[in-house]
Amino acid sequence: MNIRLYNARILTMEKDRPVFRGEIWIKNEKIAYIADEDELKREWDGDFPKISWDCEMDCRDNLLMPGFKDAHTHSAMTFLRSYADDVPLQKWLNEKVFPMEAKLTGEDIYHLTRLAVLEYLTSGITAIFEMYLTPDTIAQACLDMGMRCVLTSGLNNFSSSIEQVEEEYCRWNKKNSLISYQLGFHAEYTTSKEILYKLAQLSHKYRAPVYTHMSETEQEVDECMGRWGMTPAVFLDSMGLFEFGGGGFHCVHLTESDMEVFRRRRLHVITNPASNMKLASGVAPVAEFLRKRIPVAIGTDGPASNNCLDMFREMFLVTGLSKLKENDAASMDAMNVLNMATVQGAKAMRLSKADVLAKGKLADIIMIDLHQPNMQPIHNIPKNIVYSGSKSNVAMTMIGGKILYHRGEYNIGESPEKIYAKCDEIVRRLTG
Amino acid sequence: MNIRLYNARILTMEKDRPVFRGEIWIKNEKIAYIADEDELKREWDGDFPKISWDCEMDCRDNLLMPGFKDAHTHSAMTFLRSYADDVPLQKWLNEKVFPMEAKLTGEDIYHLTRLAVLEYLTSGITAIFEMYLTPDTIAQACLDMGMRCVLTSGLNNFSSSIEQVEEEYCRWNKKNSLISYQLGFHAEYTTSKEILYKLAQLSHKYRAPVYTHMSETEQEVDECMGRWGMTPAVFLDSMGLFEFGGGGFHCVHLTESDMEVFRRRRLHVITNPASNMKLASGVAPVAEFLRKRIPVAIGTDGPASNNCLDMFREMFLVTGLSKLKENDAASMDAMNVLNMATVQGAKAMRLSKADVLAKGKLADIIMIDLHQPNMQPIHNIPKNIVYSGSKSNVAMTMIGGKILYHRGEYNIGESPEKIYAKCDEIVRRLTG
Repeated sequence: MNIRLYNARILTMEKDRPVFRGEIWIKNEKIAYIADEDELKREWDGDFPKISWDCEMDCRDNLLMPGFKDAHTHSAMTFLRSYADDVPLQKWLNEKVFPMEAKLTGEDIYHLTRLAVLEYLTSGITAIFEMYLTPDTIAQACLDMGMRCVLTSGLNNFSSSIEQVEEEYCRWNKKNSLISYQLGFHAEYTTSKEILYKLAQLSHKYRAPVYTHMSETEQEVDECMGRWGMTPAVFLDSMGLFEFGGGGFHCVHLTESDMEVFRRRRLHVITNPASNMKLASGVAPVAEFLRKRIPVAIGTDGPASNNCLDMFREMFLVTGLSKLKENDAASMDAMNVLNMATVQGAKAMRLSKADVLAKGKLADIIMIDLHQPNMQPIHNIPKNIVYSGSKSNVAMTMIGGKILYHRGEYNIGESPEKIYAKCDEIVRRLTG
Repeated sequence: MNIRLYNARILTMEKDRPVFRGEIWIKNEKIAYIADEDELKREWDGDFPKISWDCEMDCRDNLLMPGFKDAHTHSAMTFLRSYADDVPLQKWLNEKVFPMEAKLTGEDIYHLTRLAVLEYLTSGITAIFEMYLTPDTIAQACLDMGMRCVLTSGLNNFSSSIEQVEEEYCRWNKKNSLISYQLGFHAEYTTSKEILYKLAQLSHKYRAPVYTHMSETEQEVDECMGRWGMTPAVFLDSMGLFEFGGGGFHCVHLTESDMEVFRRRRLHVITNPASNMKLASGVAPVAEFLRKRIPVAIGTDGPASNNCLDMFREMFLVTGLSKLKENDAASMDAMNVLNMATVQGAKAMRLSKADVLAKGKLADIIMIDLHQPNMQPIHNIPKNIVYSGSKSNVAMTMIGGKILYHRGEYNIGESPEKIYAKCDEIVRRLTG
């Protein structure tokens, strides 16, 4: 497949490279060529090489940029959206989430994940960092729809096992370019020291990073202190889990010592501002992380706690909450936030080919419609995206060179209505 | 014009009335008939009266509800969007806003307001409470496009005058059902005691409410204390400004005494959470207002400080910031927020015919597309709207019985591209 995207504005997200006008050529799953107007003129002078294009899209001066990376989610939790809101985290987990989850099958998770993938596409999300019960059916849903997915295990005392994690790790890291797998566990408060010890051994065996929920609530930190006399990051690091990097999801309540672990181990913080607001967990000190040179990526968390899968909302919250927390309207400018939502997301997820738009990189590209009133006038495109952008501006979502979503229409081998109907059937069984 | 909206789910926003299936008939600018499936069957049994419909719309089980009321905005500030972000309020006003505003003409404001109206329509906003420099050209822009607008004066030491305010008040309150006018002034810190005294007299003469920016920043409150030994609400009330009600825009930093003024005078708080975040002004104690039975409406503020005009973002922030501030995930449930964004907005703006969907009320109606992944599954529609809704769910916006926006297409007598081009020309002149 050869695709040409022309008459575009382009934001590659390479460091210090501003928006330019030009075009992108895609061959199969990768970017084969990217050039600004001057280069195009200099190299070809209107006399392009003879390529038989499968698709040529006039971008009408709209913006091409790397797709967003949703660096923490539990996609299949779509079944709980608007079912159990307005309750605190621990109560929500114990009374609402766990009893319902006990009834879920792998096939349910397949269908519920597909519903989430539809939504990712509408928000320009081209890769997800996914932690949920049945990695195999999640991967199958993503493969069937063309979604890029990094799986991480939600290993804990009640589900999965070290053996299963190792088997999945080996299998999914060689199978398919859309799917990869990173070591992970649910959280310190759900996982025994014995399992953690074995996971650390696995990390050492494969020289692999480890990811987990961390310091989401004050209660979690207090209880970890009670158990081990250490905060979660310090305790987990003492177990040898972070010698090959990794990251923490949430990180709302990190101490100075925790941050020192993050800095020293080059761990990523994956911040989830909407979920942390909605569950009243707090506001992560994102500006402080950046001052300490701790890399930050952004996740939506699952649709039961957010409740939407919308990177535009998360981006505005990252900057807005930082301005409030720092009491400084200059805190956390738009380019910093865009960098978290794209480049840092890719780094956190170890997707080194999906970070920026450049020759040889994966063609995970979105088009932002600038011909809408919330994007006018065009003083500053990154600020427009972060401060006034919305999913309604996502005109096209391409993953691995395939256009999966274009102006409200999906190209995912299934009608959305059928996916809604299937999920509705599952929800009725679970709540019935 | 006779319009029939059928096969709909309907949320009238009448107290304690849940979503039902039914239809709405519109005659000219008003709702002529609204009924659920049982009533329809009982009254007509399939044999409808002979009405010659100008439009019959199959709503395909999507939701009809009252349009959102944006109860505080400065529409024409579109020209400053993404031009001057990441600076604190006073610096932003003095160094960025005021010098640019000095160059604005009434005709500029006409065109810049039209750009904002396009955006309101995409977000299901059917009425705006507007404070900006040239009320006449703002009103003309709204009349030309079919937008409902309540003007309020931004009277201060530098612009407008008591005489002008009185003339505008009398003229715009009899002229047209789309436009009305309420007394107002910019803020305590920009308006002399002499002007305030005269405005209070005007309020008494017409038995009219008064609206103003109030307690947006701590600095503003401190300076008012320094000048008058009183906080803004207490001082302004002592001047006799609130004897016929009215309201305050922002109200981030109200004291107990201020809240007592609001309660006693039945003033509306109009909260602007995104603007207050972005300018690091703080978080208004909205849950505390409700506990004290102070009515709350929601505004976007202008596009220079927000930067978008999107009621979905504001609604999520009202509930999310309240959960954070109260440290309680149960704080501020979705129906409370929807009530602020519709019924309370109408009350604050004195639009008594635009609050709920009922026979005889104005046909200011929006259709929310539930056939999108962020609205699935349908456990609870109000929660879906507030927690996972976005402007991409707005399928139709009707004001006074006219469909002005339908699935991405505008019916406002002008092409959006022409409005963008005109605004671009203005922006280039202003920044050139």
